[in-house]
Amino acid sequence: MSTELPAPRPPVGNYLAAVRVADLLYLSGAGPALPDGGWMVGKVGPGGLDMPAAQAAARLVGLQLLATMRAELGDLDQVERVVKLFGMVNCMPGFTGTPEVIDGCSDVLVDILGERGRGARSAVGMAELPFGIPVEVEAVVQIRSGNR
Amino acid sequence: MSTELPAPRPPVGNYLAAVRVADLLYLSGAGPALPDGGWMVGKVGPGGLDMPAAQAAARLVGLQLLATMRAELGDLDQVERVVKLFGMVNCMPGFTGTPEVIDGCSDVLVDILGERGRGARSAVGMAELPFGIPVEVEAVVQIRSGNR
Amino acid sequence: MSTELPAPRPPVGNYLAAVRVADLLYLSGAGPALPDGGWMVGKVGPGGLDMPAAQAAARLVGLQLLATMRAELGDLDQVERVVKLFGMVNCMPGFTGTPEVIDGCSDVLVDILGERGRGARSAVGMAELPFGIPVEVEAVVQIRSGNR
Repeated sequence: MSTELPAPRPPVGNYLAAVRVADLLYLSGAGPALPDGGWMVGKVGPGGLDMPAAQAAARLVGLQLLATMRAELGDLDQVERVVKLFGMVNCMPGFTGTPEVIDGCSDVLVDILGERGRGARSAVGMAELPFGIPVEVEAVVQIRSGNR
Repeated sequence: MSTELPAPRPPVGNYLAAVRVADLLYLSGAGPALPDGGWMVGKVGPGGLDMPAAQAAARLVGLQLLATMRAELGDLDQVERVVKLFGMVNCMPGFTGTPEVIDGCSDVLVDILGERGRGARSAVGMAELPFGIPVEVEAVVQIRSGNR
Repeated sequence: MSTELPAPRPPVGNYLAAVRVADLLYLSGAGPALPDGGWMVGKVGPGGLDMPAAQAAARLVGLQLLATMRAELGDLDQVERVVKLFGMVNCMPGFTGTPEVIDGCSDVLVDILGERGRGARSAVGMAELPFGIPVEVEAVVQIRSGNR
């Protein structure tokens, strides 16, 4: 698979991008990294980013998760399936459309991985996210069991 | 076991209600589904829902988690134990009684599953939750190892 | 290893401090327990706790996580590695330096466990935390496989 993916953005503190235990890969929370090296920022909802902009941010987050999976496993074919996403939206007061925002991430995972990209999920509203990013998602992924 | 449980509410986006990996079942965040097809809504704390109402919401969430476990496993006897809950409360500013709220969910799990229903947990305060629901809980559950 | 660690603070509701499944130990969210039996409290950011105070809180949380690991496993040598942290900061509006705060927890884990203490991580901003604590962190830890 030769999907066009961004470079994975390195961790922003004293942690690792991902940790593997047996057949599971735990991915650190990813943000909407921009090609210029910065981050997309803003809160989502009234007076902030609208739904299409928030979903675009979530899509960037999904691409970062895929980029990290590929960097860790060598190849997205090694992904057995996405097990779980924890999707976090940086909300303006009263914004409750968090599942629709995080679908921007889920959709790109399913576009690229097929049914393997659809897992369990929560999609919830945070008070703040690092650097003011609008969306952050962390993931647990199952690895093909032949890949050790 | 023939516990009276509600129908499990289907996912509200591009994800699955639960994913199984080996002996673990990862459950998506569940909300307080009402029998009429809607959701209980409201923030918890001063000017919003009081503690008994918030605990009733958390109990509805626990019943949803149980309903999903039964739908996925066929029978609650297949639950070896609840491993972990992540309990989220939609908080009015200054409301800090989140553990007492999430006990409404933990209590119903223990009522129905016995000691198998008591696991690790966090119980924290969110800025917003989907559709304005007051409580959402996601879970990791261990399955009886004979059940493959 | 005879690190000076605090006593682990017991759960504050209907849950367990930790649950083990095979080689994984799931730790409940820990807070900044004070020696007098209380908790460090306050929100982080403008008008609240400053960065050094918030990092000190995060360090107390890291010590609690280590104390719980030792209580559950008998010895920190039984920790194969920290797999994942979910770091939560109780934020004043506009405070976005959550990764730097949670480094206070990550740093103490790495100080005491070495490279085994560095795992995957998210570090995000909550609306509220139990009792008004400034930092809460939950963890997944891998156990030495000989330890059954």
